[in-house]
Amino acid sequence: MEMVTMHRLNVPLPGREYEILIERGLLDKVGKRCRAVLMRASRIALITDSNVGPLYADRVKQSLEESRFQVKVITIPAGETSKSPEMLAMLWEELMAFGITRTDAIAALGGGVVGDLAGFAAATILRGIDYVQIPTTLLAQVDSSVGGKVAVDLKAGKNLAGAFWQPRMVVMDPDVLETLSDKTFADGMAEVIKYGCIWDASFFEMLDACGSREGVMQVIEQVLHICCAIKSEVVLQDEHDTGLRMILNFGHTLGHAYEKAYNYETYTHGEAVAAGMCRAAELGVKLGRTPADVPEKIISIVKKFGLPDCIACSMEDYRAAIGLDKKGQGDRISLIVLPELGKAQPIKLKKTELLDSIREP
Amino acid sequence: MEMVTMHRLNVPLPGREYEILIERGLLDKVGKRCRAVLMRASRIALITDSNVGPLYADRVKQSLEESRFQVKVITIPAGETSKSPEMLAMLWEELMAFGITRTDAIAALGGGVVGDLAGFAAATILRGIDYVQIPTTLLAQVDSSVGGKVAVDLKAGKNLAGAFWQPRMVVMDPDVLETLSDKTFADGMAEVIKYGCIWDASFFEMLDACGSREGVMQVIEQVLHICCAIKSEVVLQDEHDTGLRMILNFGHTLGHAYEKAYNYETYTHGEAVAAGMCRAAELGVKLGRTPADVPEKIISIVKKFGLPDCIACSMEDYRAAIGLDKKGQGDRISLIVLPELGKAQPIKLKKTELLDSIREP
Repeated sequence: MEMVTMHRLNVPLPGREYEILIERGLLDKVGKRCRAVLMRASRIALITDSNVGPLYADRVKQSLEESRFQVKVITIPAGETSKSPEMLAMLWEELMAFGITRTDAIAALGGGVVGDLAGFAAATILRGIDYVQIPTTLLAQVDSSVGGKVAVDLKAGKNLAGAFWQPRMVVMDPDVLETLSDKTFADGMAEVIKYGCIWDASFFEMLDACGSREGVMQVIEQVLHICCAIKSEVVLQDEHDTGLRMILNFGHTLGHAYEKAYNYETYTHGEAVAAGMCRAAELGVKLGRTPADVPEKIISIVKKFGLPDCIACSMEDYRAAIGLDKKGQGDRISLIVLPELGKAQPIKLKKTELLDSIREP
Repeated sequence: MEMVTMHRLNVPLPGREYEILIERGLLDKVGKRCRAVLMRASRIALITDSNVGPLYADRVKQSLEESRFQVKVITIPAGETSKSPEMLAMLWEELMAFGITRTDAIAALGGGVVGDLAGFAAATILRGIDYVQIPTTLLAQVDSSVGGKVAVDLKAGKNLAGAFWQPRMVVMDPDVLETLSDKTFADGMAEVIKYGCIWDASFFEMLDACGSREGVMQVIEQVLHICCAIKSEVVLQDEHDTGLRMILNFGHTLGHAYEKAYNYETYTHGEAVAAGMCRAAELGVKLGRTPADVPEKIISIVKKFGLPDCIACSMEDYRAAIGLDKKGQGDRISLIVLPELGKAQPIKLKKTELLDSIREP
């Protein structure tokens, strides 16, 4: 009985409810699962990238075809530069050339870049069609699977043009994580740790006890389930990102500064967020908002998973990054602090105040 | 008292209710009206085109500035070719360069092209910000003001990428219609007449009695109000265009064929729709769905307003246009027929059946 080992998580958005399915080997059963939710679809555009496509596109395509979908694989170049308006326009034309209609669907097979780009294409082609997410990185599984945020990058910054568009289903096969590099796995672990920090101290302890990639992989279904459940709780209370959802940005304000300072090259998103969380915990202590023992716990766990607890950054770079942060409005900026491990709270700071706190040793 | 002469129409979309304001001279009071609904906005990007901008952008800008908005005028080249993915990407970058935030807004000053493009930019920049429509053509006032459809054209066809995004307010100044050419005024009249055909026989008779552009302009506030009220009723029952809204396509299936056959050049949208309505009425009679006296009434009124009752089109062109119509699914196509003047009904026809009916004299 396959049901025994499958984790199912319902994301009960009013009117656009969907399920996240988590099971090893699920990639070969995608077709049946899609047929169950896409009753009227005859075509599925399978959007993937040049890294993931060669590994998994054939298996997914075959599974979809066995469930009587006509499939076109569209492969974009791997990497963040594909998350562009130009690539979006290319997808639009490819989708129309495939003959897609409003009852057809898109499946996104890949990491965050593929998910965000394909999701935005789904949100906009013919003013919006169904899409199914098949995230293949740990980061995409725990971060992009819930929340409905889709986007492309602009010259002015990342994720600046996009939409809120919910998938019809998310299909996660933990087996695909085996092919990730250690660096890419760690990239996702930073967000996994973040969920422990902001919402669930016992989950934090569980991860700390796992202590390594191998340890986490032994309980990966639970880990994915817990992360998605936490994000789902947060997002359901704040679908359009106007309040509570901000706590998901724990570590991200400074993390963005690090990513930007190194031109999004030297450090992964997760590495930047890991260092950002350590720094934000220390700032929380300094501001009298966070217990004194929290930073060392976070520093310890990020190190266990091969993530940096500190990234060098000039005041110049902090200033530039914070001044341009689109979340900040006017001269104030939001920072997420931890009143205790497992609880998060947004506070508003003057940008100058934040810079001063960072500057002081 | 300005209230005496102002027509106000509430579009009561749940959670995104907005008002359509209709008043001569309203262009000079846009600022106050915007301030009333955009309480938190500090910046407004005023998007217009190279035809409308020189006529009205300064007045609108001044009015907005008097209500303490910081305004940037962004002018796109007039014409349908501006409704492109490239122009959308250009707008995205311009908006970010202006420093727009999630609490700021866009105002669209122009016809359908400006409204559709600026609306799509509003729907997607920072994942969606407020926008205000200031339609300056009759077509845009009676057609794009209600419905929330925004889009760009693709190589594969018109309006193929877009979103549903409701304005915060629509501001109509009938005085701006005075500067329209007769051809552009007639372009809008086709849709005005359509509302009579599909929903309100007495409105049809009223228009027939007006008999000319001058006649219509004497009661233009009522005409705009009635058209928007009808569209609003239809759209409210079918916000995402999956059913009833189809009746708004009366005359459009064949109209699209005419537009496409002449490469969207020789005939305006309204001219094509006018001929399409005459033809659809005749087809309705032929199919036993429409009373025999309806076609002559429609032919008579479109002629009064300088619109064609017939456009030459080869079977080749019909076939091409119908086969590619994105509303059509599979081998069947929807056609709107009139069971009586003032009532509309969608029917499904085999595409071949439709072509046969057109072919027979």
